[in-house]
Amino acid sequence: MMLKYRRIPEETIRRLPIYLRGLLFSSQMGYKKVSSGELSEFVGISSCQIRKDLSYFGEFGKRGVGYDIEKLSREIRKILKLDVVRKAAIVGAGNLGSAVLTYPGFKIYNFDITAAFDADPRKIGKKIRDITVEDVRNIAKLKKRKIDLGIIAVPSADAQKTADELVKAGVKAILNFSPCYITAPKRIKVVTIDIAMDLARLPYYMPVS
Amino acid sequence: MMLKYRRIPEETIRRLPIYLRGLLFSSQMGYKKVSSGELSEFVGISSCQIRKDLSYFGEFGKRGVGYDIEKLSREIRKILKLDVVRKAAIVGAGNLGSAVLTYPGFKIYNFDITAAFDADPRKIGKKIRDITVEDVRNIAKLKKRKIDLGIIAVPSADAQKTADELVKAGVKAILNFSPCYITAPKRIKVVTIDIAMDLARLPYYMPVS
Repeated sequence: MMLKYRRIPEETIRRLPIYLRGLLFSSQMGYKKVSSGELSEFVGISSCQIRKDLSYFGEFGKRGVGYDIEKLSREIRKILKLDVVRKAAIVGAGNLGSAVLTYPGFKIYNFDITAAFDADPRKIGKKIRDITVEDVRNIAKLKKRKIDLGIIAVPSADAQKTADELVKAGVKAILNFSPCYITAPKRIKVVTIDIAMDLARLPYYMPVS
Repeated sequence: MMLKYRRIPEETIRRLPIYLRGLLFSSQMGYKKVSSGELSEFVGISSCQIRKDLSYFGEFGKRGVGYDIEKLSREIRKILKLDVVRKAAIVGAGNLGSAVLTYPGFKIYNFDITAAFDADPRKIGKKIRDITVEDVRNIAKLKKRKIDLGIIAVPSADAQKTADELVKAGVKAILNFSPCYITAPKRIKVVTIDIAMDLARLPYYMPVS
């Protein structure tokens, strides 16, 4: 079983959180079991692809019965190492940073944003949720607070500098919301999110007007 | 060539905007040509997958020379039907809605958000960017304004109702930022974005602490 885990393609890993999300939707709608066809409806990925992806982890579903939502969710969490709480810090407390801080979706994945930083004196000291915004010059102090993840929500011009500071402060991975490319040492996984990108594939499906 | 277009898998379409993004990064960094290996670095997708995806659209790259960034970008835009400007309306002008409205990344994809709605009287009439926030009860009036896309950034409890209203107002596709599942008639493509989801695949790559 563990041997199998090593060969999982990056694209499958990219889809697992989407499945987890779909399973959550299914459970919110009262389902206990869900077929790959039903899950496909929730997540917009073909049932064939879903079955293929989940086959990397052994046998979760029974033909004609579907997947046990609770069991499959637990397994995906384990595979993605989401079964422990991870502390995150966010840099940038503007509109996007505030939206991230108050977004209810992070809890599902066991992320706990426990620190926020900004360079703007009008924002420093302000409270968002239960977090007091700190001065960005104090990022280095994060080292003592066991933060696993750094989230970047600053203007593009400051993104690389912020990434460097987060790396120095000991984060192990970075989620970048700035629309620019940032680099980090190989051991640090960086994911850049473009909130506009998902919009970019909609016109493809739109009828010609 | 056009025949080929019809068989493109949804997963390839999902990745094309990512490539477009990577090409933009490359061009910002001064590149004119980029190899699948270099593009792979920018986008975090294997060069093998990139070559396979782009092969659906004919021959863009020459072995050892790389892809012509400008030409390939133009082709991808054409494939994704991003070569015409699309008008979008956003419902919800809170933190996330404001972040979306001021996000510079939508222009790249030729989206122009021209209307914003909110239910909160304190927000109605407020100006964000060059957009004046309108009363959510006036969504129906969108019909006359040729809006192609609806963007939902309201609390989950109001998301489905908002989707229904946007459909009635004539939008052809919906981008949903609320962390919940929404349904729409088959002809309307719905994409749900979870800003936390990309974070969910980071721990997989993190060393055990």
